[in-house]
Amino acid sequence: MSGYRVPLKDIHFLCHQVLGLDEHRIKLSGSEDVSAEELDAIFEEAAKFAENMLAPVNVTGDLQGCSLKNGKVITPEGFRESYKAYVEAGWSGISADPNFGGQGLPTSVGVSVLEMMTTANMAWTLYPELSHGSVLAISAHGSEEQKQIYLTKLISGEWTGTMCLTESHAGSDVGLLSTRAKPRADGSYDISGTKIFISGGEHEMSENIVHLVLARLPDAPSGTKGISLFLVPKYKVSDTGELLDRNTLECSALEEKMGLHGCSTCVMNFDNAQGYLLGSENKGMSCMFTMMNAARIYVGIQGLGLMEGAYQKSLSYAQERVQMRALDGPKNPDQVADPIIVHPDVRKMLLTQKALVEGCRALIYETGRYQDCIKYGADAELRQTAELMVDFYTPIVKGFVTEVAQESTSLALQVFGGHGYIRETGIEQYVRDARITTLYEGTNGIQALDLMGRKTLHTQGKAMMSLVGESRELAGALEQEGFWFADKLRTVTSEWGELTGEIAERVQNDPNELGAAAVDYLMYSGYAVLAIMWGRMALCAKTELSDGKDDDFYQGKLATADFYFKRLLPRCLMHAEAMRAGAGSLMEIDPAGFAHA
Amino acid sequence: MSGYRVPLKDIHFLCHQVLGLDEHRIKLSGSEDVSAEELDAIFEEAAKFAENMLAPVNVTGDLQGCSLKNGKVITPEGFRESYKAYVEAGWSGISADPNFGGQGLPTSVGVSVLEMMTTANMAWTLYPELSHGSVLAISAHGSEEQKQIYLTKLISGEWTGTMCLTESHAGSDVGLLSTRAKPRADGSYDISGTKIFISGGEHEMSENIVHLVLARLPDAPSGTKGISLFLVPKYKVSDTGELLDRNTLECSALEEKMGLHGCSTCVMNFDNAQGYLLGSENKGMSCMFTMMNAARIYVGIQGLGLMEGAYQKSLSYAQERVQMRALDGPKNPDQVADPIIVHPDVRKMLLTQKALVEGCRALIYETGRYQDCIKYGADAELRQTAELMVDFYTPIVKGFVTEVAQESTSLALQVFGGHGYIRETGIEQYVRDARITTLYEGTNGIQALDLMGRKTLHTQGKAMMSLVGESRELAGALEQEGFWFADKLRTVTSEWGELTGEIAERVQNDPNELGAAAVDYLMYSGYAVLAIMWGRMALCAKTELSDGKDDDFYQGKLATADFYFKRLLPRCLMHAEAMRAGAGSLMEIDPAGFAHA
Repeated sequence: MSGYRVPLKDIHFLCHQVLGLDEHRIKLSGSEDVSAEELDAIFEEAAKFAENMLAPVNVTGDLQGCSLKNGKVITPEGFRESYKAYVEAGWSGISADPNFGGQGLPTSVGVSVLEMMTTANMAWTLYPELSHGSVLAISAHGSEEQKQIYLTKLISGEWTGTMCLTESHAGSDVGLLSTRAKPRADGSYDISGTKIFISGGEHEMSENIVHLVLARLPDAPSGTKGISLFLVPKYKVSDTGELLDRNTLECSALEEKMGLHGCSTCVMNFDNAQGYLLGSENKGMSCMFTMMNAARIYVGIQGLGLMEGAYQKSLSYAQERVQMRALDGPKNPDQVADPIIVHPDVRKMLLTQKALVEGCRALIYETGRYQDCIKYGADAELRQTAELMVDFYTPIVKGFVTEVAQESTSLALQVFGGHGYIRETGIEQYVRDARITTLYEGTNGIQALDLMGRKTLHTQGKAMMSLVGESRELAGALEQEGFWFADKLRTVTSEWGELTGEIAERVQNDPNELGAAAVDYLMYSGYAVLAIMWGRMALCAKTELSDGKDDDFYQGKLATADFYFKRLLPRCLMHAEAMRAGAGSLMEIDPAGFAHA
Repeated sequence: MSGYRVPLKDIHFLCHQVLGLDEHRIKLSGSEDVSAEELDAIFEEAAKFAENMLAPVNVTGDLQGCSLKNGKVITPEGFRESYKAYVEAGWSGISADPNFGGQGLPTSVGVSVLEMMTTANMAWTLYPELSHGSVLAISAHGSEEQKQIYLTKLISGEWTGTMCLTESHAGSDVGLLSTRAKPRADGSYDISGTKIFISGGEHEMSENIVHLVLARLPDAPSGTKGISLFLVPKYKVSDTGELLDRNTLECSALEEKMGLHGCSTCVMNFDNAQGYLLGSENKGMSCMFTMMNAARIYVGIQGLGLMEGAYQKSLSYAQERVQMRALDGPKNPDQVADPIIVHPDVRKMLLTQKALVEGCRALIYETGRYQDCIKYGADAELRQTAELMVDFYTPIVKGFVTEVAQESTSLALQVFGGHGYIRETGIEQYVRDARITTLYEGTNGIQALDLMGRKTLHTQGKAMMSLVGESRELAGALEQEGFWFADKLRTVTSEWGELTGEIAERVQNDPNELGAAAVDYLMYSGYAVLAIMWGRMALCAKTELSDGKDDDFYQGKLATADFYFKRLLPRCLMHAEAMRAGAGSLMEIDPAGFAHA
């Protein structure tokens, strides 16, 4: 049995109090209504599923991994059973379109449920979650017929989906891909090529697998302008959705990876496989981004989930493991030593994790709220603002959250001392699983360029400036309530604006200034946004405390906010100075000067 | 074949130029003389051994790991053969006492050789290197008879040694250990108990294994004051050093670990095994520290080696992998894309690694220079100063170097993008192997307490103040040569002094202030010391350049120094602010407030 317990207290705090999601849902137009009580019931059911069905097969999934036999992928014990239960309980379509069998709940509800499942078992959750990207892409770009056949099955979970983008020579640079699509007489296409790193590319958990494949039409322009997206099913499908014979595609190998062993990472060969154009010719990149943006937020949720799981384990260990005495005298004189949570540095490691995981959860749920508004916002202005904010938050959720997830899971391991290095303890799996999140669905370097270029400089910093405005109001409210860090919040967000201006100016003279500042800008932005989240959480916690409720939890929130502003926010100082160092410090060295052997 | 190439250029630069080790060796008294030319010949031989015998079995060692069959440990293919070659070539005793068969070369020579072997194969190098700690402990605390028998065999490498300290309930808190030593009539002892995490506790690479075991005598005081050190051989030994029957000790299990698979990490059971007291009764802690201090420096060398190996791999990849165009226009218009080393963020990741690995190498070699002076210093004052400096540098070498090794190896992986997560690429092994270094031989939290408490506050900051003085002189010299960062060096080291004073004052009122500041102090100290090293390297590089030699290498040094001061040293800002936040931000939260589930 795993010890993972869904952090329902924190989830309730965010949904009902900090982010006011109950009032928010009432204002949405077109989503299914759900009351606060119904929401809690859904969360409790999801928690049970995550704790009882997914968490118990997380460690075994890592140990067993996947294997390939005669073209079939064998997933770890319990994975198929859990998937069956997931489909039967209807979790697959929780936020999906009711016209195709979904439950139509707001995205923000699905985000919490997804967090729970991902924390319990990241490798397992990748199988159903990749379908979600396919659902979005087919919804946005599919023909009515494609929707009737494929959406219904993907939403029910009977079929799953994949994203087939990467080739061995075309990763970050997707424009280099060479998979070919040749038109057939019947309007379909012959797809040929080899894709790598395809998560869930082959398995026996679902009846069919729908591959969304980027490929080039004959005579397509070179680069990203000549890429189209194709829908290529593992088993061909009749006009009424019945499964026909096997398509000519196969998984030719599984990658051996550092972690995420429960998820099959496939090399997929398409050999004149029958496929169908999704969206318009040569517009594959825009179709891909429909999936990709969802996938990027999802990778941020993976970062969050791994931080949460690792935090819980290290907190238990710090409370149970006794070793040495507190520096200011014994705390448990009747035991041979004190629990290690008495030591300042152990507390620092725990509080760093707590401040990051709770701050990132707030950020991700806030993004979910804006995702609701894009889809169900009552007016066009709200929908537009929401789109701006989701666009801006996406690279922060993907890039910043996964970056701090590296630190946070590693700190959790460190709390265990030497025992943390032993597989049996179960903590090192979080570190190995987390390591992929800064890499896939666009490396964090790519996220940083996206944030600073497309999402900030190209919009004249609109989203960023609106957050700076919001933080000024928030700082006023914090000041009124006597929070010392009101001023820190004001300072960090104003400097955010100044830095953006400075770099915008530099970029005009030298495009390398963008790449030289981008990752530090991403991290600075993440810490600034988390400062806003912690300001909001502190205000709410204080209100709740004055109502006399659950002292420990709310006092813990206030202490963590204090810690965040004192101990983590100062990291912005370093990122600001690094950005101001400019591109010269990176570009002046000759490539030959890197060698010293 | 592995691509590891010993960084002889950098090693020569440090030894012959920056640290002036050739002049230094001449002044030593009692070590074997070695000229600059002889030194280079030794390094070239060691490089060949590391590149050709150890590097090729590094990846296979990770894949195969160790296994336990009928009490015997089977090491990966090639490990025994490499060990045999190592012993035959005489590497084992390179810096050891000629009275017992060693070559008597200065420690600083051994440090470079050890770095090469560790980089090539960390798991393999642990087997012989742990003997080194045993050699030191027996040299310092053994009887003449013990020296004659055990030292000779350990120095020749025919036998290996281990350190048996940890028990499952006694890790950081070694005073809790419960292994017992019962006196026998013949003056030896019956040792009984179970030790865990014993690296190289059992294997067939050497003829005998000498375990140095911490245990308690009957009626010994509790805690660390009642611990004694015993020498317990795997095979009993006659008075003339012949192997007799097997002692009653065995490896009962191997740990499954995150990495370091080639090294056997054993659970060792001692069942009335015959042992011999080493040093005095109840003085085991001080004997242990003789080994432990050497082991800590060695762990720092592991951090250095892993950084070097990972840097080399990521540099090659960045030069070969083509993906996207440079932001300021194509660099290789005849290829489909530019090598990724054109991208500013890739350069940042490479330069961060380069600045850290070269800075840490300088720090470790400087520590080696002082180690020489402790052993062979011409007068008592020099020996005393050297001891002070080695004491001070030890926790920085262990704690800081291994901390930045986490970042550096992880950046190397990041350069590979998604390919970095695949085992075949060979880069993720560095990340997994590196993860142990912050944990064993005293966690980095313990190192930080040692640095700030014993090595700084308890000595009135003597070593630190002498470095501040040195840095002022250095800053003057840098200023004269027109280096813009002279002032940065001055500022960071003066603030180092101020911070030390501030915390010393606070600790008087609250001992938790020590633990609350210690890790940030460790990191601040590390960056300050590396600033001194980079200042010295920059000066030397400039001198060499004006002589018209190897432009690329020396220009690379200057660019890396510039990068260090612009991009990495600003991390001190964050550590200073975190330290000044004090213990309140950590201690005020109630343990119950950590939970949110």
